Amino acid sequence: MRVLGVDPGLTRCGVGIVEGAFGSPISLVGVGVILTPTEAALDQRLLDLDQQLSEWINVWKPDVIAVERVFSQHNVRTVMGTGQAAGIALLLAAKAGIPVMMHTPSEVKASVTGRGRANKAQVALMVQKILNLDTIPKPVDATDALALAICHIWRGGGNAKIAQALAAEQSRLKKLRAK
Amino acid sequence: MRVLGVDPGLTRCGVGIVEGAFGSPISLVGVGVILTPTEAALDQRLLDLDQQLSEWINVWKPDVIAVERVFSQHNVRTVMGTGQAAGIALLLAAKAGIPVMMHTPSEVKASVTGRGRANKAQVALMVQKILNLDTIPKPVDATDALALAICHIWRGGGNAKIAQALAAEQSRLKKLRAK
Repeated sequence: MRVLGVDPGLTRCGVGIVEGAFGSPISLVGVGVILTPTEAALDQRLLDLDQQLSEWINVWKPDVIAVERVFSQHNVRTVMGTGQAAGIALLLAAKAGIPVMMHTPSEVKASVTGRGRANKAQVALMVQKILNLDTIPKPVDATDALALAICHIWRGGGNAKIAQALAAEQSRLKKLRAK
Repeated sequence: MRVLGVDPGLTRCGVGIVEGAFGSPISLVGVGVILTPTEAALDQRLLDLDQQLSEWINVWKPDVIAVERVFSQHNVRTVMGTGQAAGIALLLAAKAGIPVMMHTPSEVKASVTGRGRANKAQVALMVQKILNLDTIPKPVDATDALALAICHIWRGGGNAKIAQALAAEQSRLKKLRAK
């Protein structure tokens, strides 16, 4: 199973792709950070992110997309951009017919380090170990995206299968309604 | 100038199109509400909204799109959906190369009723008068979208011209970067 993890953000959006299965080794396929210029207008930034993220999906063809679930943060400006970036990831997944799931930051931390309140450095270190990498991928958005993808595999095929079945059912209903 | 006003929302997204110019009568072109099923998965709802809003843009070909600027609300769940719906409107505008501007709720109220703290009923009544309609369009999301479009025209060509110039410059820079 190839999973694209997306750590959503407007200024920096982490993307990480891993391949593996629950109970088998997981390997790194690709990792990076999508940047959009802070001085650009919001609509142009969203377009920029949409185009770049779309390229990641087209090139790497993930089986599943895992997106970090965005919660309330202190800074309303930030949470709005993060939410809109997550929205674009979800929209692209739906357009491509790829099942998409959301995981909370604590789910990701707990899954990768065993502790829901682990810090960024601990998560990064575990990502390095799990993927058997020489160095820790940088910046932290990239590691977070990889952790998210690993979490998705480890939280198990069960959830993914449910999501896939739901997506298939929804697409069937959609076609029925369109008739 | 034909303006599409979008009152963003995931459950109900108001859309209203008016035509006119600052200092001339403004007329109604189209109005409606885009609904997405609350029981569907978030990615499917975003896809649904994207497709329906895209149809409004393709059919009516607005010169400008005006979107309500989303602020912090008490309910974090709601604000996230509203923000994502607004993000989709902005993204579609950018994809279509249509200038897009955001106006705050108080700007819209002040522009249409003369009072930034006017209530929904007062806004709806003024929309009816301005557009010379026999009845008030319903539901309130539809009236809000029309008020937004009217506000955009009344707040003046100046802003729209600036937005258009900025959009042209951004698209030029984008092409340069792509080379």
